[in-house]
Amino acid sequence: MTFTRPVLTPAAERAARRRAAAPLVSLTTDFGARDPSAAICRGVVLSIAPHVRLLDVSHEVAKFAVLDGALLLWCALPYLPVGVHVAVVDPGVGTARLPIGMRVARGDLLVGPDNGLLLPAAERLGGVVAVHALEAADYRLPEVSASFHGRDIFAPAGAHLALGVPLERFGRALDPAGLVRVDLPAPESLPGALVSAGIYVDTFGNVKLAGERSDLEASLGPLAPGDPLALEIGGPAGSTRTLELRWQETFGAAPAGTPLLYEDSYGRLCVAVNRGDAASQLGLRAADRLTIRRASGS
Amino acid sequence: MTFTRPVLTPAAERAARRRAAAPLVSLTTDFGARDPSAAICRGVVLSIAPHVRLLDVSHEVAKFAVLDGALLLWCALPYLPVGVHVAVVDPGVGTARLPIGMRVARGDLLVGPDNGLLLPAAERLGGVVAVHALEAADYRLPEVSASFHGRDIFAPAGAHLALGVPLERFGRALDPAGLVRVDLPAPESLPGALVSAGIYVDTFGNVKLAGERSDLEASLGPLAPGDPLALEIGGPAGSTRTLELRWQETFGAAPAGTPLLYEDSYGRLCVAVNRGDAASQLGLRAADRLTIRRASGS
Amino acid sequence: MTFTRPVLTPAAERAARRRAAAPLVSLTTDFGARDPSAAICRGVVLSIAPHVRLLDVSHEVAKFAVLDGALLLWCALPYLPVGVHVAVVDPGVGTARLPIGMRVARGDLLVGPDNGLLLPAAERLGGVVAVHALEAADYRLPEVSASFHGRDIFAPAGAHLALGVPLERFGRALDPAGLVRVDLPAPESLPGALVSAGIYVDTFGNVKLAGERSDLEASLGPLAPGDPLALEIGGPAGSTRTLELRWQETFGAAPAGTPLLYEDSYGRLCVAVNRGDAASQLGLRAADRLTIRRASGS
Repeated sequence: MTFTRPVLTPAAERAARRRAAAPLVSLTTDFGARDPSAAICRGVVLSIAPHVRLLDVSHEVAKFAVLDGALLLWCALPYLPVGVHVAVVDPGVGTARLPIGMRVARGDLLVGPDNGLLLPAAERLGGVVAVHALEAADYRLPEVSASFHGRDIFAPAGAHLALGVPLERFGRALDPAGLVRVDLPAPESLPGALVSAGIYVDTFGNVKLAGERSDLEASLGPLAPGDPLALEIGGPAGSTRTLELRWQETFGAAPAGTPLLYEDSYGRLCVAVNRGDAASQLGLRAADRLTIRRASGS
Repeated sequence: MTFTRPVLTPAAERAARRRAAAPLVSLTTDFGARDPSAAICRGVVLSIAPHVRLLDVSHEVAKFAVLDGALLLWCALPYLPVGVHVAVVDPGVGTARLPIGMRVARGDLLVGPDNGLLLPAAERLGGVVAVHALEAADYRLPEVSASFHGRDIFAPAGAHLALGVPLERFGRALDPAGLVRVDLPAPESLPGALVSAGIYVDTFGNVKLAGERSDLEASLGPLAPGDPLALEIGGPAGSTRTLELRWQETFGAAPAGTPLLYEDSYGRLCVAVNRGDAASQLGLRAADRLTIRRASGS
Repeated sequence: MTFTRPVLTPAAERAARRRAAAPLVSLTTDFGARDPSAAICRGVVLSIAPHVRLLDVSHEVAKFAVLDGALLLWCALPYLPVGVHVAVVDPGVGTARLPIGMRVARGDLLVGPDNGLLLPAAERLGGVVAVHALEAADYRLPEVSASFHGRDIFAPAGAHLALGVPLERFGRALDPAGLVRVDLPAPESLPGALVSAGIYVDTFGNVKLAGERSDLEASLGPLAPGDPLALEIGGPAGSTRTLELRWQETFGAAPAGTPLLYEDSYGRLCVAVNRGDAASQLGLRAADRLTIRRASGS
């Protein structure tokens, strides 16, 4: 039995450094894992720029859910290497909405439709430095369909950017202030209460809320583990119900099966159930309006 | 803040060109993302041919759905780089059906069971140039199970082909005319009507039909955006119902929530609902018989 | 039409050998394909160690299902190249459970929580050679959250191990005998009966059982294809029912739609239905107690 620790030899280290120079192209779409679309985007990128490192962020964004896609990119891109990030959640494909590419302050290049998908992540990566329309035929597939711009415009743009084609060559410069924005729900801090909303239910059933710990502390004062809280849940029909839970630093501090409010690993407020599915157990949805107050405790 | 555009240095470019020479191996299966099977195929390929670039087409083909897998490869492979494409949708695993490898005119090598899975894509890549049975023990895992030929025969074959082992060495040549075929549903052009069928419902709920725009125009004459059409839907029990929709060039030309018939990005006829799920909203399934005529319009 | 067989040129072969030296890092989690977590782990690994080859085993392990994750690694890792394998199914994240890294006899390095997830695979790879706690701040992200150790501890540890940082530098050595274990269900061989249990239902609906063919033959004597067997199924409420099926070597030996018991491609006993979904057709679940006896046949 040999013990082949993956220690790099000097030659492998040199090769690794060269490889490390290969651009990264990430892909984020709502195309789904069953259909050919995601693989076709991968294939188009590798056909144009065979040397890139491909990284799938996700192809399971909820269909047409631009806000979900924007949140996903906001969460993920800061942890990815500087690279070219192609994102396609594009209910307006085939309409007048522009395909765009943008450079951000961190050095990344973001590619996708001008529908708000890219901006929250761009701001988190230091802000938009330049935006151009993706119009040059040289950097599209020869035929552009009306329904699959991921394949015909966005993946080819990402690949050409990864090859080093300057963004300026893709089309006219756009004013970043004129880009379409999606409004991420924002919390409202009142004395004694934070009015927030569910913005995303993750695959564990954790319910991400608008706002951060500091927003909640601005309303309720400093929070300590175990502090009892009341969560007033307003459904779409105007009905409300109230749930008691505690502020905790970790899931494990709540008994298994009981709910907690905590600061998630991105700094956001989040409702969870320790070893459970908060959304289904508590009947919460992404669109719910939620008001958080202190409770008397037990 | 630096602006690290992914521009290649001359050294990185040379490395990239070398990397670009590394063969691509794609994988397409019905193994599902939860089970170990897809990862094992990836691992077997990389164990035998550590230098290849792996590309997953999909592992979510509907179980045992050879026709779905064939359509997926037909859609995807033209957009992938020339490479080795391993596909396993194999309800007959462990029976007398042959494992085969084929070279196609574009230069790709296709690997999978002789059950019709590979042929539509092969024809789209220029046609079959040579087919051989995958029989040589040298290019299989040492033990071949009765139920997992993806791991034991197909992935090792793909890896050895990527290493440059000539196809001829894998086993006896087969007559391409003798391969098992799946019949892709074909439309029937009648005067004033095209008789078609649903062949695939994608993850957006778009219903792909047998036939292309030219088939429909052969029956109905030239189509213009907005032309009203009647879609007669025959269910499995012989019942029929009729749906009115319009021919459109883009989703966006139909009001949100309304159905349209359009030419999809692969050239096929497709029923969709703008920003909606046509299959569930219209009650369409992949097996439905569909007759398309002109309608009087509104 | 050219025939570009992916035969390596001498230069490409040299490059390939260098690339082959690049360490492989595999990822196995219950994070799901829709959320950002899996992509973030990929991004963290590539940010620290840009040269590695990433391989996703699965991110679809059932939530918190440590046993399912352990079985998945047990199945998959023997077929992966020697590498660094990061696994995160971690219901105890944020509690006192230790993050660990271990070296196994085959040469792999396994990274994950000390909750039993890694041990069955480690034993299949020759056994644990050394285990260390992952405590050194140098090899974690600068901020460690309470809820996402995959990003903050495990992915960075995997990347640093792939860079060649010795396991010993990550923290104090642990006694392998003191690690948390999960009990894989074991069968009980009685004269004339094997008492087993469902342990995993795969995506085809095949029901994997505790025990191997040799366990069954220890109770029933040598098995031949077609031997009739009786499967007594004990539900959670104490009820039992009995199902007749046959021992077979291949799916195809059973008529389509009929059940069989066979030795799966990992050597385990498994209940399947040829071209069908055994779990749903036969009403079997992973937790069912199953007693197998010989039947009189027909």
